[in-house]
Amino acid sequence: MPGPVHDYLDGLARAGEDPLLAEMHALAAERGFPIVGPQVGRLLAQLVHLTGARRIFELGSGFGYSALWFARALPPDGEIFLTDGDPANMKLARGFLGRAGLADRAVFLTGHGQDLLQVAPGLFDIVFCDVDKEQYPEVHGLLRRHLRVGGAFVIDNLLWDGKVADPAANDPATRGVRAFTERMWGDPGFLSSLLPLRDGVGLSVRLR
Amino acid sequence: MPGPVHDYLDGLARAGEDPLLAEMHALAAERGFPIVGPQVGRLLAQLVHLTGARRIFELGSGFGYSALWFARALPPDGEIFLTDGDPANMKLARGFLGRAGLADRAVFLTGHGQDLLQVAPGLFDIVFCDVDKEQYPEVHGLLRRHLRVGGAFVIDNLLWDGKVADPAANDPATRGVRAFTERMWGDPGFLSSLLPLRDGVGLSVRLR
Repeated sequence: MPGPVHDYLDGLARAGEDPLLAEMHALAAERGFPIVGPQVGRLLAQLVHLTGARRIFELGSGFGYSALWFARALPPDGEIFLTDGDPANMKLARGFLGRAGLADRAVFLTGHGQDLLQVAPGLFDIVFCDVDKEQYPEVHGLLRRHLRVGGAFVIDNLLWDGKVADPAANDPATRGVRAFTERMWGDPGFLSSLLPLRDGVGLSVRLR
Repeated sequence: MPGPVHDYLDGLARAGEDPLLAEMHALAAERGFPIVGPQVGRLLAQLVHLTGARRIFELGSGFGYSALWFARALPPDGEIFLTDGDPANMKLARGFLGRAGLADRAVFLTGHGQDLLQVAPGLFDIVFCDVDKEQYPEVHGLLRRHLRVGGAFVIDNLLWDGKVADPAANDPATRGVRAFTERMWGDPGFLSSLLPLRDGVGLSVRLR
């Protein structure tokens, strides 16, 4: 919500913002394209350092905003898989990460994120999810085979504009977010929290 | 702020709450004693798993609420140092952690947290800070010698009831929180974010 505290948080999140991030913020605003924004972006980069991540998989990369935060935090031999159903998004992402000098640690895949994760080799340190909300419940089932123990799963929009907490909201997307959240919080193999950043960021650590 | 989203977040944070945590919540409410609460508590436990922490130091432990979350997430050979200036708090903390079966991985020290950190041996994976706000700036200077690279520094109350964003607020505590935040965000050796949980939780990862 707007106000001095919001502006203060936004200012701290944007500290040291460079022209490439500024350009992505402007593109998102111009197109009304949802991006996680700098507060969440910082957290994504922090998770790379905290876990010592070398391998990251994104389900739904858009034009590469979250991937830029991740990729910048990875070590030079790290790798991030970007996926998106729209080839135009992947082309934009390739351009942005290339201009950041990070193309060598990124793999750009056009297609259905969950299908691509199922054929991706090895375990990942971090899996990020921002696909259509109706598909959220099925993503939970994929994690045990693709996320390492101690790794982080990050999923956006768990508040879904507050609709998850509104008993009158019963559309498929809201039901998808609710069903995912119930499964994840009920899974003793993960420790989960819902961070009230922007539209609600779910963070789950795989325990075993 | 109260409302259905607040209640939804609180419900998810309290999922699986056991009688010991409930007793600590009740004690805090009864005494008006500030604790970080279950949303932050979950994040603390997650940080232990994400970093693979074995050694944690707390500056200002109160009656052991944050330490209980940390200690439960530690492996059996992990250790957490609790510090507080009030021996009555340390006695309560010893009781709670003992009842949780975690006393063997906890060290209870009555005294000035920063002094005790300076004599503590070795590097820590996580340092947590909740001391008097006037003392916050000096804590930043201690981290480079006591927090390992890739480790997490967590500091409570970085919003200080919104006063940090109010130009009219100029009391020593508010000035202390602001000065700490400026130093931390200006330090290229750390990547920091301010999470809007409760009164604002600062999370800084040591990069080098």
